[in-house]
Amino acid sequence: MGKNVTLVGAGLVGSLLSIYLSKKGYKVTVFERRPDMRKTNIAAGRSINLALSDRGWRGLDGVGISDEIRKIGIPMYGRFIHHKDGSSAYQPYGRDDQAIYSVSRADINMKLMDLAEQKAGVKIHFDKRCSQIDRNNLECSFEDNHTKEITKIKSDLVFGADGAFAASRLNMQLQSDRFEYNQHYIECGYKELIIPPGENGSFKMEKNALHIWPRGSFMMIALPNPDGNFTCTLFLPFEGEKSFEKIKTTEQIEAFFKEEFPDAVPLMPTLVEDFKHNPVSSLVTVKCFPWTFDDKIALIGDAAHAIVPFYGQGMNCGFEDCVVLNDLIEKHKENWSEIMKEYQALRKPDADAIADLAVANFIEMRDKTADPKFLLQKKIEAKFSQKYPDKWIPLYSMVTYSPHIRYSTALKEGSKQQLIMDRIMARPNIEKEWESPEIEKEILEQLK
Amino acid sequence: MGKNVTLVGAGLVGSLLSIYLSKKGYKVTVFERRPDMRKTNIAAGRSINLALSDRGWRGLDGVGISDEIRKIGIPMYGRFIHHKDGSSAYQPYGRDDQAIYSVSRADINMKLMDLAEQKAGVKIHFDKRCSQIDRNNLECSFEDNHTKEITKIKSDLVFGADGAFAASRLNMQLQSDRFEYNQHYIECGYKELIIPPGENGSFKMEKNALHIWPRGSFMMIALPNPDGNFTCTLFLPFEGEKSFEKIKTTEQIEAFFKEEFPDAVPLMPTLVEDFKHNPVSSLVTVKCFPWTFDDKIALIGDAAHAIVPFYGQGMNCGFEDCVVLNDLIEKHKENWSEIMKEYQALRKPDADAIADLAVANFIEMRDKTADPKFLLQKKIEAKFSQKYPDKWIPLYSMVTYSPHIRYSTALKEGSKQQLIMDRIMARPNIEKEWESPEIEKEILEQLK
Repeated sequence: MGKNVTLVGAGLVGSLLSIYLSKKGYKVTVFERRPDMRKTNIAAGRSINLALSDRGWRGLDGVGISDEIRKIGIPMYGRFIHHKDGSSAYQPYGRDDQAIYSVSRADINMKLMDLAEQKAGVKIHFDKRCSQIDRNNLECSFEDNHTKEITKIKSDLVFGADGAFAASRLNMQLQSDRFEYNQHYIECGYKELIIPPGENGSFKMEKNALHIWPRGSFMMIALPNPDGNFTCTLFLPFEGEKSFEKIKTTEQIEAFFKEEFPDAVPLMPTLVEDFKHNPVSSLVTVKCFPWTFDDKIALIGDAAHAIVPFYGQGMNCGFEDCVVLNDLIEKHKENWSEIMKEYQALRKPDADAIADLAVANFIEMRDKTADPKFLLQKKIEAKFSQKYPDKWIPLYSMVTYSPHIRYSTALKEGSKQQLIMDRIMARPNIEKEWESPEIEKEILEQLK
Repeated sequence: MGKNVTLVGAGLVGSLLSIYLSKKGYKVTVFERRPDMRKTNIAAGRSINLALSDRGWRGLDGVGISDEIRKIGIPMYGRFIHHKDGSSAYQPYGRDDQAIYSVSRADINMKLMDLAEQKAGVKIHFDKRCSQIDRNNLECSFEDNHTKEITKIKSDLVFGADGAFAASRLNMQLQSDRFEYNQHYIECGYKELIIPPGENGSFKMEKNALHIWPRGSFMMIALPNPDGNFTCTLFLPFEGEKSFEKIKTTEQIEAFFKEEFPDAVPLMPTLVEDFKHNPVSSLVTVKCFPWTFDDKIALIGDAAHAIVPFYGQGMNCGFEDCVVLNDLIEKHKENWSEIMKEYQALRKPDADAIADLAVANFIEMRDKTADPKFLLQKKIEAKFSQKYPDKWIPLYSMVTYSPHIRYSTALKEGSKQQLIMDRIMARPNIEKEWESPEIEKEILEQLK
């Protein structure tokens, strides 16, 4: 079989995949719907920070660019909780040396594009919208955004890495019998806001943490950027009592923020104009199957499994797709029939698992992180895990710091742990006895 | 507001809806993707029988064509069960006067088209594929199958009645944020086969029944046609031990049918060639929301809620959509903003309910109808219901013969009934005491 690949999408996963494939000797022609982001400005209010963690690092390690990316990332060692009364709490994400990294989506994407274009055989075409994938002839058509000219290209393999609303996936859906498809929106949307730097680019809040203002049915978060500002994201229902629908005027915006996020308001001088100007975006989970077609076409990243952002795993999961695919290319010595089969068999349950975990983590973040009992539970788990690292890795750590544990395994183990912790936390004196040897014994007992 | 309507699809629901709208003074232009079925032959193995029941009759009553349709239907008063050992059982569908009607999909569709075209203001265009619905301008584009010419039409209202794979729905999906969408296939496909008439057009099996060969993970059914033949449908997994994948050769077909449906084989002289020639089709459930857009565009019938055929409710549910919409036009005096809102609010939970009931009924038909205990349960329910018709209407009767009971209510009531019957059937001597006053008392007690 030839080694010509057509790749739809030069986003995070598409760019990384092109590098992996190029290293295996494939000629990769990439078509990206958007203009080259390195030459255009990013729209305000769409800056988007991501949390890079160990599965993502593994993907970057594989092509040798971790060090470069680490330079533009800011480690976050825990959650910094902002309560409504102005008090705060801190909850480490794992051991002292464990962090997730705040990176700008644009920065990492541009770096990956630069690196991809340096590779032999990789060529990225911008402003080319995928208008058709002819499954029978393996011919892809792309329309130029400006000239409307159609480019047709035949290749030996096609990858769809064109995101949550992938044209590649829609093409497969319309050309396949028995295509399973589900898109589901949560009831909240999000809007980006900003906390600008203090004097001389200083950080106005704790730099090395992910900030959360948990408020039950909604929340705000903030992630640090290298120039001293924080990207804030307000997650709020579209409709209802406290919702985007109800908060429109200057008065409504000011009243809402003063009531809910009093400590943040003084840090947000452009709050009202940002709120009015920046768009509200929706949050979708997409599940589909199959991911591969005729052993020659495959979906990858968000195109195969878009998830909500609350576990910070969207990019990490997509990068892991690339690692898995790369391993399978080696394992099956480029027998693409075998590669495709095992790729979707392996990854589908993991993608389903992280999709469900991500939805569940929204509830944890917006609601439970405000609950002292929940914070105590995390402390008990951390303590036990430190003493018995072979017996207990907290769910967050399995997902975030343990790329050798599959998402689907993490989900299963996490459910078992939760059952045990439910019993532990139900003990009447748990607040007082949580450090006692009895609790430790009880957990050990339950683990049997 | 003007009264020009564009209607996508001249299938069962589209044709009926055009009649209803015409009676309210609307000018309805219908575009159908297929050629005029009254002038072309229907493909072999795609004859399709439907079971018309009371919700459907109500839809036809509303436009005064029940009598005409009843002439081409055959009443089926119960299930005729064919066991593997050649023995059989009969289970009435309801009271003696209650029947569902076997009708040919094509016959009823043609009659509805004839009637629609006789109405003032209704015009059906065939061979016109919906290529675009411009939501902002309410302009629909249709491509002619032969000339490829595009017809563009603006109107005041647009209805999408173009079936499970509706182009109208896809257009709305691609133009809407937060569109909920799910398509799910069951693991079985189906293939149509035939039992031809006996001498002088006689029926080779009981005429007034729906025949079922329940075999656990698969089944065959047969519905009577006026010319003496039966349309058989084999529902079988695509893959696995006993599956379409495994039954291909003459030997495999003959062996499978001799083993599983010994009593049917002598009645099916063209079995092998039919099996080899006729296609295997898949079975999808589609759920989506919203169903209406900008108060001017609405999805109806399978376009809004495709369901599997096992409750015989697909057409009936679509006809009920028309009745509900017609009632709302009267109620809200053609205020379409109100009509659209209430239409989707009312019908969405009902469509979801019948979708789930239809999937559940596959298990009942293929598996439970072979179980004497299940048949006994139905007998007990029928007996109790006859004595206390105000206290108990069996689920099947609620769905099939009780158009005044919403599907969603039937689903809820049915679940409650099942809990009660689980307890009744768990009694150790139920086979002996099922007619005793104690059982009756116990049910009455549980109902409180």
